Amino acid sequence: SVSSTPIRATLFPGDGIGPEIAESVKQIFKAADVPIEWEEHYVGTEIDPRTQSFLTWESLESVRQNRVGLKGPMATPIGKGHRSLNLTLRKELNLYANVRPCYSLPGYKTRYDNVNLITIRENTEGEYSGLEHQVVRGVVESLKIITRQASLRVAEYAFHYAKEHGRERVSAIHKANIMQKTDGLFLKCCREVAEKYPDIKYEEVVIDNCCMMLVKNPALFDVLVMPNLYGDIISDLCAGLVGGLGLTPSCNIGEGGIALAESIHGSAPDIAGKNLANPTALPMIGVSMLRHLNIHDKADHIQNAILNTIAEGRYPTADLGGKAKTTEFTNAIIDHL
Amino acid sequence: SVSSTPIRATLFPGDGIGPEIAESVKQIFKAADVPIEWEEHYVGTEIDPRTQSFLTWESLESVRQNRVGLKGPMATPIGKGHRSLNLTLRKELNLYANVRPCYSLPGYKTRYDNVNLITIRENTEGEYSGLEHQVVRGVVESLKIITRQASLRVAEYAFHYAKEHGRERVSAIHKANIMQKTDGLFLKCCREVAEKYPDIKYEEVVIDNCCMMLVKNPALFDVLVMPNLYGDIISDLCAGLVGGLGLTPSCNIGEGGIALAESIHGSAPDIAGKNLANPTALPMIGVSMLRHLNIHDKADHIQNAILNTIAEGRYPTADLGGKAKTTEFTNAIIDHL
Ligand SMILES: CC(C)[C@H](C(=O)O)[C@@H](O)C(=O)O
Ligand SMILES: CC(C)[C@H](C(=O)O)[C@@H](O)C(=O)O
Repeated sequence: SVSSTPIRATLFPGDGIGPEIAESVKQIFKAADVPIEWEEHYVGTEIDPRTQSFLTWESLESVRQNRVGLKGPMATPIGKGHRSLNLTLRKELNLYANVRPCYSLPGYKTRYDNVNLITIRENTEGEYSGLEHQVVRGVVESLKIITRQASLRVAEYAFHYAKEHGRERVSAIHKANIMQKTDGLFLKCCREVAEKYPDIKYEEVVIDNCCMMLVKNPALFDVLVMPNLYGDIISDLCAGLVGGLGLTPSCNIGEGGIALAESIHGSAPDIAGKNLANPTALPMIGVSMLRHLNIHDKADHIQNAILNTIAEGRYPTADLGGKAKTTEFTNAIIDHL
Repeated sequence: SVSSTPIRATLFPGDGIGPEIAESVKQIFKAADVPIEWEEHYVGTEIDPRTQSFLTWESLESVRQNRVGLKGPMATPIGKGHRSLNLTLRKELNLYANVRPCYSLPGYKTRYDNVNLITIRENTEGEYSGLEHQVVRGVVESLKIITRQASLRVAEYAFHYAKEHGRERVSAIHKANIMQKTDGLFLKCCREVAEKYPDIKYEEVVIDNCCMMLVKNPALFDVLVMPNLYGDIISDLCAGLVGGLGLTPSCNIGEGGIALAESIHGSAPDIAGKNLANPTALPMIGVSMLRHLNIHDKADHIQNAILNTIAEGRYPTADLGGKAKTTEFTNAIIDHL
């Protein structure tokens, strides 16, 4: 019984187990009466027989139009001659910031309690420039690029996020003691932005030290902002603190408010199509997409159903050492709604 | 009552609290009758009034001659116009591998038990090339360099180490899904070396995934080998798992068997000269130097005395929330010998 006009959102089920868990999302959202109408497109590492393409222009346009989307796992083949589709999407849609909230989930015990931090990653440059070449035989180089524009933009996003979400502190993560020019520029931009937000504390932490502090006491951190590769590393580390990639939402933010929420776990080709995947990650990411859209009541409702299903532990899928089916787990979540 | 001729070893006390904790090492080693004769040189971020230098040729020659040394903390000033002395030593002495054993210490409780792994880091290139420049205003680049020679050399060291120490597996850590050429070359070299060691298992793990697995279950790893920056990050992360940089030995290995053991904690300028530093790190690193020299009886003896002193907890220094003096803690260790 939804009265408001539904919001159109793009759905990229992705590779491997993607289609099965995307199906779970659709069923759960439907059962919870979420006012979303999905616009589904295939983007992935296999050529789609219908479009003869890995990624069509229509798929990109769909996100540009709807300005919100949900993306399943896409495999990144090593050395297959084409670029990771994850990166292609970030680039084509100019998704300049990657935001990963990371908090301890009730009912999911790890070595850490009360983790509650946000990693914000510059998503377009750094070691991800794609510029590499052989200098002479046996000597290769990659270029790490840092620009003032991209650094200011992500720093601005981080401080704005901190302010909007009532966060106290932003830590810029760097290795400027070694890369004085590149990471030095990144820090300079963060400092400039920090001055505009006098109410938010600002600090700078060297990446190696940051990782050590994170595993000793993650409560030391609040919002972390950093260049691309450090963000890649630290966001996975943080996900590990609270249980793994299957539980951590990730959202890519682009100009004009585009938000593409994405699953960051693998596409698990070994179990694809076998009804064996644990279907918690993509719905949880769907929840974060709902929060982005300010549909908090539905977000809470679905999140609680998922957490209760996990806590109950009656349908352990293969990753949890059990034999439950994807569909059984999905139905259990729906029963908890 | 030492009968054998003493071994000459170089000692660089370093900056900040370095001289005080170097003094602890000397006293503890003397009390334990370790057959070492120290050759002490100043290397550090202040100009030495006696030599008018940060780092003299004699200091370098001393390590080259003795082929073994112990190095205290040296500060790395950000943007002071000269290179980190840590890096200068690695470069001048061609210290191509950095080895950090990381294991849970009895009597030192953390969130993790039974950690027992070794990180082996390429120590001369990668993002540490020092090659950086501004392309145009607001756009800077750093060069990451990977060479076949340095990659083979560190891979060879890692497999040799694994074999010598009865280790089962070597994991090469990389981001070749993004840096296909640079990290791709590193992996290629690791694979070549792996073929020569059929009894040692070999695997490749992407750095972000590696960090996640390390915080979830460090027992998954044995020996890890990796390019410079990843080594910097992962070795600190691993140190965090077992309690921090003050407890993790680090040894730099150079051509011809040179070994420079080093402390990797900071120089703590705020408490320098105040008899407040916790003196456990440098003696523990001295212990690892003794193991390198195959003086295992003395190493065990001193290590037990240090661990018992920590476990007893009667002399908590400032870092442990107490007020004990460096000299009190040192004397307690000596009493435990
Ligand atoms: C799959 C890979 C290309 C990607 C990255 O390195 O960014 C992933 O690790 C991530 O964090 O989204
Ligand atoms: C102090 C710094 C230059 C150094 C490094 O980055 O290598 C340190 O972090 C280390 O790990 O020895």
